[in-house]
Amino acid sequence: MTGISILPLEGIPEVREGDDLAALIDAVAELEDGDVLVVAQKVVSKAEGRIVRLDKVEASERAKELAADRDPRELEVILGEAVRLVRTRPPLVIAETRHGFVCASAGVDHSNAGAAGTLVLLPLDPDASARRLADRLGVAVIISDSFGRPFRQGTTDVAVGVAGLTPLLDLRGVRDSVGYELRTTMIAVADEIAGAAELVMGKARGIPAAIIRGLELRGKGSARDLVMPAERDLFR
Amino acid sequence: MTGISILPLEGIPEVREGDDLAALIDAVAELEDGDVLVVAQKVVSKAEGRIVRLDKVEASERAKELAADRDPRELEVILGEAVRLVRTRPPLVIAETRHGFVCASAGVDHSNAGAAGTLVLLPLDPDASARRLADRLGVAVIISDSFGRPFRQGTTDVAVGVAGLTPLLDLRGVRDSVGYELRTTMIAVADEIAGAAELVMGKARGIPAAIIRGLELRGKGSARDLVMPAERDLFR
Repeated sequence: MTGISILPLEGIPEVREGDDLAALIDAVAELEDGDVLVVAQKVVSKAEGRIVRLDKVEASERAKELAADRDPRELEVILGEAVRLVRTRPPLVIAETRHGFVCASAGVDHSNAGAAGTLVLLPLDPDASARRLADRLGVAVIISDSFGRPFRQGTTDVAVGVAGLTPLLDLRGVRDSVGYELRTTMIAVADEIAGAAELVMGKARGIPAAIIRGLELRGKGSARDLVMPAERDLFR
Repeated sequence: MTGISILPLEGIPEVREGDDLAALIDAVAELEDGDVLVVAQKVVSKAEGRIVRLDKVEASERAKELAADRDPRELEVILGEAVRLVRTRPPLVIAETRHGFVCASAGVDHSNAGAAGTLVLLPLDPDASARRLADRLGVAVIISDSFGRPFRQGTTDVAVGVAGLTPLLDLRGVRDSVGYELRTTMIAVADEIAGAAELVMGKARGIPAAIIRGLELRGKGSARDLVMPAERDLFR
């Protein structure tokens, strides 16, 4: 193995609802066979119209209870995206989304389009979003988002949508270079790829996509493979 | 930014107690100014003699209770490395280490040196281990280990030791490309770098180190900066 490259995709314009995101990427990317394309969730959601204007939201009593010093309408939107509240410390809400992801604000984030009264939601089906981009562009696609983690400070980018790639590398039964059976058996490579891409994308630089070149990974799977099944989850 | 490269360091021999790890790396690495070197915890621990032979361990009653079908002496070693048990489902133990890390088996792992009765412990002070390598080799160093995560399947490599690099990128107050103040404010870049390195190291390939080239990150800090302070931790 000669190593991998992580290349920022510069020159993608501000994405708006209804934009053909695959075309915008195709216009600036020189994709090669075997590449993995990582795309920030926020631009996928915007293209798909997963945006909410706060002036159209009315806050419930529950949202007001959770809001503390935050706009209760934001909490209302978060509650609408949550299937389960995992931890709350107003105004902080950690929730499970319909996709099974556990994350801050149920994945709801501010638009960084300058429109202060607008929130962006996770795609309804991020695997399907990844699949559409993969089919159009001919490469594996990961849709990434920044998640916090229990016990550790700071966010890392993880995969919320996957197409054309097996997100978990299963080493069960594999022996290492000296013949010892490996104990750590499943590696979340899609999350590691998403995090690697974040290093060149950068929130502040406004680069919404990156290419990972040189990985010898293919296969298939879903970002839902990365969700811990309830029966194995010691932290539910 | 032109992107980053992740280069596996091949040719490092099996590491044994007392080995001069910096010299072993220096013999095969062509390091450049600005590189970040990621080294797997296991080889650092081995060089530092952080290994335990099971035939010298006697299991306590508590270790036997937690062992289920596992060797209770392994649990005894894990209990010795733990300052707090966070979750237990015998034989699975998730524990806080003296460094503040919360991870499976308090970071205790099997040696993959073919010696079936040997366990490897985390370095006593992984930041100091990273600092020694950084001083010898003239680059920033991250010592990485594979941690599981609540809510998500599979492990990702994270930073357990850091030298010559600020592990958390603090974007509080920074505005994005269209002037909106960023809400996700701290990015755990050291964990993203460790995970990126894992993509070329690979447990099964026996490559214990990688170079990350092209990052524009310097600074200083400690892997302890990545530990969530108790008062902010909603999952304690």
